[in-house]
Amino acid sequence: MKKKYIMAPGPTEVPPEVLAEAAKPVMHHRTPQFRKILTEALENMQYVLGTTRHVYLMASSGTGAMEAAMANTVSAGDKVIVGSIGAFGERWENLAKAYGANIVKLAPEWGYALNPADIKKALDENPDAVGLFIQLNETSTGVYNDIEAIGKLTAGHKALLVVDGISGIGAQPFYMDKWGVDVIVVGSQKGLMIPPGLAFVSCSEKAMKVIEANKTPKFYFDLKRYEKSLTKEKMPDTPWTSAVSLITQLNLALRMIKEETNEKVWERHAKLSKAVREGIKALGLELFAKENPATVLTSVVVPEGVDGKALVKKIRDDYGISMAGGQLKLEGKIFRIGTLGYTDRFDPITGVAAAEMALKELGANIEIGKGVKKTMETLMEQGY
Amino acid sequence: MKKKYIMAPGPTEVPPEVLAEAAKPVMHHRTPQFRKILTEALENMQYVLGTTRHVYLMASSGTGAMEAAMANTVSAGDKVIVGSIGAFGERWENLAKAYGANIVKLAPEWGYALNPADIKKALDENPDAVGLFIQLNETSTGVYNDIEAIGKLTAGHKALLVVDGISGIGAQPFYMDKWGVDVIVVGSQKGLMIPPGLAFVSCSEKAMKVIEANKTPKFYFDLKRYEKSLTKEKMPDTPWTSAVSLITQLNLALRMIKEETNEKVWERHAKLSKAVREGIKALGLELFAKENPATVLTSVVVPEGVDGKALVKKIRDDYGISMAGGQLKLEGKIFRIGTLGYTDRFDPITGVAAAEMALKELGANIEIGKGVKKTMETLMEQGY
Repeated sequence: MKKKYIMAPGPTEVPPEVLAEAAKPVMHHRTPQFRKILTEALENMQYVLGTTRHVYLMASSGTGAMEAAMANTVSAGDKVIVGSIGAFGERWENLAKAYGANIVKLAPEWGYALNPADIKKALDENPDAVGLFIQLNETSTGVYNDIEAIGKLTAGHKALLVVDGISGIGAQPFYMDKWGVDVIVVGSQKGLMIPPGLAFVSCSEKAMKVIEANKTPKFYFDLKRYEKSLTKEKMPDTPWTSAVSLITQLNLALRMIKEETNEKVWERHAKLSKAVREGIKALGLELFAKENPATVLTSVVVPEGVDGKALVKKIRDDYGISMAGGQLKLEGKIFRIGTLGYTDRFDPITGVAAAEMALKELGANIEIGKGVKKTMETLMEQGY
Repeated sequence: MKKKYIMAPGPTEVPPEVLAEAAKPVMHHRTPQFRKILTEALENMQYVLGTTRHVYLMASSGTGAMEAAMANTVSAGDKVIVGSIGAFGERWENLAKAYGANIVKLAPEWGYALNPADIKKALDENPDAVGLFIQLNETSTGVYNDIEAIGKLTAGHKALLVVDGISGIGAQPFYMDKWGVDVIVVGSQKGLMIPPGLAFVSCSEKAMKVIEANKTPKFYFDLKRYEKSLTKEKMPDTPWTSAVSLITQLNLALRMIKEETNEKVWERHAKLSKAVREGIKALGLELFAKENPATVLTSVVVPEGVDGKALVKKIRDDYGISMAGGQLKLEGKIFRIGTLGYTDRFDPITGVAAAEMALKELGANIEIGKGVKKTMETLMEQGY
């Protein structure tokens, strides 16, 4: 028997009571009974996002919601600014290409965040840009962007601020309305603590005007259809068949988040990831994030002489923990310890202990227990 | 306490052991452990579809897979033939409109199937048509199309035969390769006996040539990306995050179908729906389907003097059974008793009994028990 853990930046572990929700009989989606559940879930998503705007819920992975954000706000030939700080920034670029946009790309070295000054310059130089596409948290590098500062820059600009919050929402501070985010994209299998399969989009009034006028061919991800279904007879609905079992799970998970409160959830993630970072540093290892270290995961440079792919494989196959390796140009060069979603104080301890033991077994010069000690101390210093 | 039943043409009831599968801890999708499950599920989908072609699995409702079929085979300005026999035929038309196609529409009166002679004429008159878009089973009317006969007509034609099999697959005879179907679209919450949230597409070689050359903007539903992910290192994968909990459910449900065999599954559905039809006729009620009555559901004309909406509401709220009413122009005029998916001999009996009791309570001239008697006799005559 091997006990299994997920310490990936998604999918994340799902609380047992939320798992059990999916084992209940399936409900029909076009019933008042189901719509009550949908109503509560959508209201709680507004709370999580800090918005009074409607939230559109779709059966898809997060990428589908990213496509919805692109296909509903951009037309072929439009200029867009893509702020890419890693693999998911590249996805914005690929989406913009697929829709025939002219791309102005800002791409700081991986490991760094977008610099608001650079964004201001790009916006000033491109007053015709229709959108700025960025990540709240870039999972591939473990760096987050300062959305609050960036929102102040797009407020007076034509460009919509479109934020991929797939891995960050439910883990780090976010206030859609207060920060002036025009389009936010969310996935289900990260901070929301349910399995993959649901995604969300919410749009500001500024964005809705653009969306209303947009003529790009689309159907399943056409946000006008989602808006229309939400207002029908004052009862919420989805334009296409609702993924009912995932939505009943969502409803329960969101209740748990609301009960804990956004602020406490964010604080928990911040403390847990700090504990991992301090533990890793105490081992003499290098963090990959040079600024704005993520609270959803800690990216660690694989020490020289260790095979990064073998490390992740050992942790997964021998120890039973799914951590993440590096993506694209970081393949084999970093590993990533998730502290996202259904997480508590013993998760960082387990994560750092696994890293220590696996690195030691693969020949790294590690003093067993040193990282874990610091992780524990950091948790206690933070009053966790 | 009220015991709950689903007798809708989707979502359908999910076997308890398949429900329980979703309560297991979430797995990470980029692992050999998960890919084993995905491999088995995709192989069994090939068996269900009667194809040696790859099956593409996506997190979406069936409509998303319909969009994939349209967006990957049609370009703006292309001519397409839409054969519509109900509300889901209209969806093909709406999708074709969204993608700027020129539409030649065949639309027999609702309650009838597509006539292969009419299709032959349309194909002959439109040698430039790139696709014929039809349903295997049209859920809104309870009528199926003769795909085998239609496949013979498109075999020598430029047009691809694109079939929405969302409600029919896993319930009625279907042989993708043998019948010459170029694109088949499937949803998870019907004959496949799992909750909504997954959809499938499989394409013939003829279709893949068109798809390879297609330039319509798309990303999430881009079938080239699905094909690419399937062949990566000879291990299957999905291009976007796999909906792991639904896929583990799928795997178990498909094992159950394979064990029963396609032919036995189809025979079971045929027998159960025949039992409902005979019971309904014995009550003196009129069937809505004038030809090719579906095996997934029985559509019944609401007798004069009865409020069709109140009937469906009573059956749902008082008796606990989700049946379906009529859609679009059939709203309030028909009701539909599903016999789809996880179904056995007592389901038609329950369905007909509920119809009898609710109709009686709403003032119809019904002799209680007459329909159920005929339903039971029909089951026994068929050796069920």
